[in-house]
Amino acid sequence: MEELLLLPGETVKDMAKDVAYICPFSGAIRGSFTVTNYRLYFKSLERDHRLVLDAPLGVISRIEKIGGSSGRGENSHGVEIVCKDMRNIRFAYKPDGRIRKSIFETLLKFAFPLTHELPLFAFEYKDVFPDNGWKVYDPIMEYRRQGIPNESWRISRINERYGLCDTYPALLVVPVNISDEELKRVSNFRARDRVPVLSWIHPESQAAIIRCSQPLVGVNGKRSKEDEKYLQSIMDANAHSHKIFIFDARPSVNAVANKAKGGGFESEDAYQNAELIFLDIHNIHVMRESLRKLKEIAYPTIQESNWLSNLESTHWLEHIKLILAGALRIADKLESGKTSVVVHCSDGWDRTAQLTSLAMLMLDGYYRTIRGFEVLVEKEWLSFGHHFRLRVGHGDKNHADAEKSPVFLQFIDCVWQMTRQFPNAFEFNEHFLVTILDHLHSCLFGTFLCNSEQERVIESIPQETVSLWSFINSQPEDFTNPLYLNYSSHVLYPVASTRHLELWAGYYIRWNPGTKSQETFNNR
Amino acid sequence: MEELLLLPGETVKDMAKDVAYICPFSGAIRGSFTVTNYRLYFKSLERDHRLVLDAPLGVISRIEKIGGSSGRGENSHGVEIVCKDMRNIRFAYKPDGRIRKSIFETLLKFAFPLTHELPLFAFEYKDVFPDNGWKVYDPIMEYRRQGIPNESWRISRINERYGLCDTYPALLVVPVNISDEELKRVSNFRARDRVPVLSWIHPESQAAIIRCSQPLVGVNGKRSKEDEKYLQSIMDANAHSHKIFIFDARPSVNAVANKAKGGGFESEDAYQNAELIFLDIHNIHVMRESLRKLKEIAYPTIQESNWLSNLESTHWLEHIKLILAGALRIADKLESGKTSVVVHCSDGWDRTAQLTSLAMLMLDGYYRTIRGFEVLVEKEWLSFGHHFRLRVGHGDKNHADAEKSPVFLQFIDCVWQMTRQFPNAFEFNEHFLVTILDHLHSCLFGTFLCNSEQERVIESIPQETVSLWSFINSQPEDFTNPLYLNYSSHVLYPVASTRHLELWAGYYIRWNPGTKSQETFNNR
Repeated sequence: MEELLLLPGETVKDMAKDVAYICPFSGAIRGSFTVTNYRLYFKSLERDHRLVLDAPLGVISRIEKIGGSSGRGENSHGVEIVCKDMRNIRFAYKPDGRIRKSIFETLLKFAFPLTHELPLFAFEYKDVFPDNGWKVYDPIMEYRRQGIPNESWRISRINERYGLCDTYPALLVVPVNISDEELKRVSNFRARDRVPVLSWIHPESQAAIIRCSQPLVGVNGKRSKEDEKYLQSIMDANAHSHKIFIFDARPSVNAVANKAKGGGFESEDAYQNAELIFLDIHNIHVMRESLRKLKEIAYPTIQESNWLSNLESTHWLEHIKLILAGALRIADKLESGKTSVVVHCSDGWDRTAQLTSLAMLMLDGYYRTIRGFEVLVEKEWLSFGHHFRLRVGHGDKNHADAEKSPVFLQFIDCVWQMTRQFPNAFEFNEHFLVTILDHLHSCLFGTFLCNSEQERVIESIPQETVSLWSFINSQPEDFTNPLYLNYSSHVLYPVASTRHLELWAGYYIRWNPGTKSQETFNNR
Repeated sequence: MEELLLLPGETVKDMAKDVAYICPFSGAIRGSFTVTNYRLYFKSLERDHRLVLDAPLGVISRIEKIGGSSGRGENSHGVEIVCKDMRNIRFAYKPDGRIRKSIFETLLKFAFPLTHELPLFAFEYKDVFPDNGWKVYDPIMEYRRQGIPNESWRISRINERYGLCDTYPALLVVPVNISDEELKRVSNFRARDRVPVLSWIHPESQAAIIRCSQPLVGVNGKRSKEDEKYLQSIMDANAHSHKIFIFDARPSVNAVANKAKGGGFESEDAYQNAELIFLDIHNIHVMRESLRKLKEIAYPTIQESNWLSNLESTHWLEHIKLILAGALRIADKLESGKTSVVVHCSDGWDRTAQLTSLAMLMLDGYYRTIRGFEVLVEKEWLSFGHHFRLRVGHGDKNHADAEKSPVFLQFIDCVWQMTRQFPNAFEFNEHFLVTILDHLHSCLFGTFLCNSEQERVIESIPQETVSLWSFINSQPEDFTNPLYLNYSSHVLYPVASTRHLELWAGYYIRWNPGTKSQETFNNR
């Protein structure tokens, strides 16, 4: 029987002996319940129903009390733990009032440490790994790998103290003929000061992927000479094309509606030689709602007879398709069209990150290795300020739901879809992707804390916490795809069509016992 | 450019130079059109649209004339060729009347040779292979592999001249204490004289899979002492259990309805220690209709937004699920329950063959090898009289649609689903399964001709034609799964749930160009 093995820095905070885990599949199972500063741990007492439930507290989204004074029956009092990873966990206790006070209040306290002025567990975790994951991403090295600086592009240190843009990385790649002074003026015309900067450059054609936020056009159709000149410089940096494509990730109606709030999109009149394309990807609220529906039909039980139409009604795969299709169009413009592209949404840290990172994964085989993928996440997501803290809601009970959204989950889902279509093209396996998502929530590692590079510097994340990549890179064999063939010089064009996409059962419905039996053999 | 390479025995029957292939994806493509006694062959003339269409005439289900006197426009006259493999092929010709007369009449003649008193191409095909596929299946050897004859089971030669049952094989395995005389009396109580005989025996528990047709109970609830004693002997042959399960593949309402036609099912009153279980699998007409709907939504184009609900509405995956679930219950009774089972439907040559062969595939790793699978098809399908001629409708223009049904296709689909769930457990790959289905229609090999072993003997199929297994076993590397690990002593329990089943894109929607691009790399 599994014993609870504490991690370095982990301590038991409370324990109760007579708690029932209300399994949605097997009913009530009595056992002992332990809360540490990192996890909840349940172990059954019953002989013929051995069960261990071991979940990091970081996965908890909400804790609801069930029953109370009006409740009747043995298992009518308890808590329902709503998790961020597609499951709910329900416990019941004898309604004598004592257990409730102690253990479930401890659970509440350590599940939401920030609400209780406690540190996230990542700051207490003291494990040591041979590999230091904080050294995986070095922007200078990564840009050098891409051949930058070169005659057209330079590395600017204007944001070294995050003065130009507080959600951007310290180092930015910009056209050589744009001065830091001009950059400042451009930043005034872009939402949240997120100026267009280079993310990736094609090794042959020099076509580039540029990312930014929406221009501050507003209802009056404001223009910025500096911004227009800037985009022209980006186009000029690529000798192969006299055109530039601007991919606006949003549905056009949303982009228009953003004008009322001071935002908007580039008019083709103002930007010479630019073509604007809307990619029809919905916002964080639509995505959150879609995932909520998916959980509703997938947990705890699945209605067999209407599974496919129910799945369709969540629109989850349709959203995945639109994101993949958008990335595909971007990759194709660079590869086949030899043309540079500018990608933005509203703020440029959600849909934009999905699109640029997926396009880069299609175009550049380096990102399809384990190390390369870590660099991709560090670069496009972490350094460019995807708001992990707000989108995941780490350790905060009162965190507004309106900011939470499965944006990074969708990206990983798209990656999984690509690995399914190209089983030999990725060095990592499915377990690698599931592990990343599990530690997106766990708060064991510092990797996905904070909203920006600046916040991570202020909170000394690399000094105070362990990187997820330290853990992964110290046991790479667990995460390696045995079918990997090095196709690094190939461009992958996945099919972005609903009939080629599948619901990722290994993540979304892994708690359903029917899912697991798939791999059991009965040894005769 | 591909040239038409004739097979040994193949001759060109007609050729036309100015025919247009109306591609559903790229529009009209002009080229030359050749008809041989085996295939139709179209080759485009256009430089920038190189295309070869090479299809065996056996795949043609129906040819319909389009246009005629009222037709207008260049491509309004022609033929629509409805195929048995989920596609339609459309050709147009200049409406001057000459081409129509010659080549399309030749096509009609050789597509339906039986209607025109011509032989099927399998009888003209004269290729020689190093391996002789007709020797793959030797019933004596196969039963010996299973340990038969033994103290409880004997091999009877009563059907050597197909006198007991004309749709059964020459050799039958029956309980030792049942005489050939008693077998005759039992055959009078079973539809089409298909008496219960052994298909497979568990190497340890001696629990057996027995197959037969429905009992002739009729509206008055007729009983047969001989049949009851016979089933008792089958139970007695297995010392581990004092029970026997009868799996009736049909929905119970259909089984009841069959009483009016003289059939029916075993009453538990008459058969002591027997438990009857209905498996709710629908009949050949329902399956044919389901496949028709599937083709409707999958060819030529797929409506992206409603794909999942459209797929659900065909019920195809639901039928596949019920077949797999039924086979799973059978396998589990043998493996976990150590109990013998009797399997039947109405005639015992469609659903029964699906169930017994799939259960055997789960229970016996030998059938998961290339040779073993060939033996399984030869034994459970060919020797036990699955009506391939009627279900496929080889070479017969006037063949009644009511007898056609995708019963064997469903079996192969279920096998494919199993290979997906257990990627290491099968020696053969997807190409092996697609090849079998392609030659189910092609009439290149003799394997799938005729309705029964007796018919194949009368028509001297093994002497006059080449076996599909000769072709496959002469180049096994093309059909071998590189991931195969020999799990021969394992029982496989696939998950029979809609959310684990997938539409087999590599077969059903392979004509859609979107399907193929999945595997293309763009080499930089």
